[in-house]
Amino acid sequence: MQNFNLSRNYATQLDFQDELASFREQFVIDDPDLLYMDGNSLGRLSKASQTRVREVLDDEWGRDLINGWNKNGWWDAPLRIGEKIAALVGAAQGQVLVSDQTSVNLFKLAASALALRAGRKQIVSDAYNFPSDLYVLQGLANLLSPSPLQGEGRVGGRAYELVTFGSRDGITPDLDELESLITEDTALVELSHVTFKSGYLFDMQKITEMVHRKGALVLWDLCHSIGATPVALDDCNADFAIGCTYKYLNGGPGAPAMLYVNKKHQADASSPIWGWWGQSDPFAFNVDYQPADGVARFATGTAPMLSLLAMESALGPALEAGLPRLRSKSLQLSEYLIRLSDEILAPLGFSLGSPRDATVRGSHVSLRHADAYRINRALIEEMKVIPDFRAPDNIRLGLAPLYTTFAEVWETVERMRIVMVEKRYEKYSGQRLKVT
Amino acid sequence: MQNFNLSRNYATQLDFQDELASFREQFVIDDPDLLYMDGNSLGRLSKASQTRVREVLDDEWGRDLINGWNKNGWWDAPLRIGEKIAALVGAAQGQVLVSDQTSVNLFKLAASALALRAGRKQIVSDAYNFPSDLYVLQGLANLLSPSPLQGEGRVGGRAYELVTFGSRDGITPDLDELESLITEDTALVELSHVTFKSGYLFDMQKITEMVHRKGALVLWDLCHSIGATPVALDDCNADFAIGCTYKYLNGGPGAPAMLYVNKKHQADASSPIWGWWGQSDPFAFNVDYQPADGVARFATGTAPMLSLLAMESALGPALEAGLPRLRSKSLQLSEYLIRLSDEILAPLGFSLGSPRDATVRGSHVSLRHADAYRINRALIEEMKVIPDFRAPDNIRLGLAPLYTTFAEVWETVERMRIVMVEKRYEKYSGQRLKVT
Repeated sequence: MQNFNLSRNYATQLDFQDELASFREQFVIDDPDLLYMDGNSLGRLSKASQTRVREVLDDEWGRDLINGWNKNGWWDAPLRIGEKIAALVGAAQGQVLVSDQTSVNLFKLAASALALRAGRKQIVSDAYNFPSDLYVLQGLANLLSPSPLQGEGRVGGRAYELVTFGSRDGITPDLDELESLITEDTALVELSHVTFKSGYLFDMQKITEMVHRKGALVLWDLCHSIGATPVALDDCNADFAIGCTYKYLNGGPGAPAMLYVNKKHQADASSPIWGWWGQSDPFAFNVDYQPADGVARFATGTAPMLSLLAMESALGPALEAGLPRLRSKSLQLSEYLIRLSDEILAPLGFSLGSPRDATVRGSHVSLRHADAYRINRALIEEMKVIPDFRAPDNIRLGLAPLYTTFAEVWETVERMRIVMVEKRYEKYSGQRLKVT
Repeated sequence: MQNFNLSRNYATQLDFQDELASFREQFVIDDPDLLYMDGNSLGRLSKASQTRVREVLDDEWGRDLINGWNKNGWWDAPLRIGEKIAALVGAAQGQVLVSDQTSVNLFKLAASALALRAGRKQIVSDAYNFPSDLYVLQGLANLLSPSPLQGEGRVGGRAYELVTFGSRDGITPDLDELESLITEDTALVELSHVTFKSGYLFDMQKITEMVHRKGALVLWDLCHSIGATPVALDDCNADFAIGCTYKYLNGGPGAPAMLYVNKKHQADASSPIWGWWGQSDPFAFNVDYQPADGVARFATGTAPMLSLLAMESALGPALEAGLPRLRSKSLQLSEYLIRLSDEILAPLGFSLGSPRDATVRGSHVSLRHADAYRINRALIEEMKVIPDFRAPDNIRLGLAPLYTTFAEVWETVERMRIVMVEKRYEKYSGQRLKVT
């Protein structure tokens, strides 16, 4: 970021030098004045998805009807698309599948991990993990633990226990505490590779080794890293991973999720949900379940094709750009945002809610302010900026390297400045955060 | 079926008298000469879905981006669409939800049922059930049973056992055997309301009472009845139900599935998959899971919106026609097919693989023949007929009352006759069934 300065012209220069700039043209940009800083929640619609979905409707479902399953590659889509995503998460072939939603995939893989480490009763996670992950783990622990309320007890033995580690500042996890929690009783450690609020990026290699040293397994949630941050599942010797496809991969609202099962576990791991799409020969209609070989056994039922095939087409730009270039631009965007924020927003009461160190930062940046909730409302209602708010005090700005421009980053900071100096947030209801 | 005769003209007359005839115009019929007899596997594309999906792409995802979740009713869709489907399955409001796929919903509700009947260790189903249902039940029994392979055992107590009843003729289930299997140890009876092969229609009222007399719970799979056969879940006092939406409801390939939880169980039943869409206040991001009130707690993760909203629009024609008229036409179609088959196909070696009694027949008709596999190939490859084959000897013809015409039924039988008299099936490979 040479010759950094606060001018809009500098942003324009950065866009001019951006080798990914042309990728923005592959997306539908309905209103160029709308500053969309939430591509980390729902990625933009790609032109490829738009075209593909019309084709699936008109030429495939409408015309080929049931024959679409074979003729148009619907049946093979979950594995085929899995292989495409594999290239984005550092996985060799045969380990990635698209299936269900993230929560269901977490349930399936976490249950598999517990079965592979039967006897161990502890699950470790991060108190700052996306709460949904914690819910699924709590539910699984409940399902597989004895309960005095349930008659003779459908389950026996010791109960599963979910323990979490914390953070001193709400940004950087306490890795010493994490290490101290992992014991010979730990079956599974489940972490978001990039945390949803601060955007902290865990060192997958180091943590995976830490977990393996105690004989436990690790499951990585890639929702907030996939498509914007390099992921090297195989090189890190990760055991399991899940991830959603509607954030930086632009798969569309609620597009089916991915899952990864390391080759080394595939012979022994089995899904708790024995679906017919995970059966070895689904159309033999055998009465006794026989799991398919490989990662395919983690499929459940018939995949939602419109959403799935829209997502497949959306992968094109990310695959074409490649993760090194995506990461490079992502970091340029976040560095630029942080520098602007330091100069312009910090004097107005904002502090950085994300790591300053780029090596432990994903592709979104949180800016904290006691009035964050109301500021966020003002940005949306009056300023044509779409960030999102995460309690208690975070305005989260997603930087999607395929289509976010440096000029948009500049303009976002400028509009935030205007909201502050004109006190536009004051008319909105919502409590000011009590600083404790 | 007055003045029945074998002429094509008679079919035309039936179409002329059909009060649902105009509904066919609400569907995309690409090639009127293609006889689509597989609407019970994948329903046709409705014009409403075609229009709606384009709108979701262009005007909602493309333009409203993340705001689509609130502005366009995406977030509420699973419950809103559930309420629409409720009208088709005889359920009062607040009991039906759209979520996941059929297999995942079966897993969730069956697990809930077992928890409600803790201590009882038997699950009863039908050997002629769709194998996928049996797989899910086998997997659940495995998950919740002790296993000597798993160290100290993550579960204790007695193992769950899945037992199935049979059929003397492959068409009509042995209801005496079913009754004899249900004991004080039975937790759950799971049945397909209409069986996938023969189209046998269980008496939901009678079976539900039979199950309840032993204190067990019943879970109905509505995949092959929903949208073509009346279902009265509340009146029958059914406990749970699941069903897919891509057959007679025309929701599209892999469209999300429905689930029903009777009001009486909602306070006590809980999903084994604690998803954030089933959390009481998902955007509070509380760390401890608190299930939502009512059926909503059975939601898991973010629903695939393109597939979901395509399905919502597809419900229009079925809701407008209403089940009494749909059932009436469905039975007319199947009676007509059976009479034509008796006269024309029975002399060519076909026998009826579905109940002759209309009161126990769903909306598809299976015709059995020792050469069924090859005949089915010839129909698809040469005759522009799309039935489907179900081993060992069934050609299954789905009659979708919203768009199947009597002329199509006549023409299907005629083309089957041609395949037989011209021995067109003989060139296809595949074993002739050995009649045992």
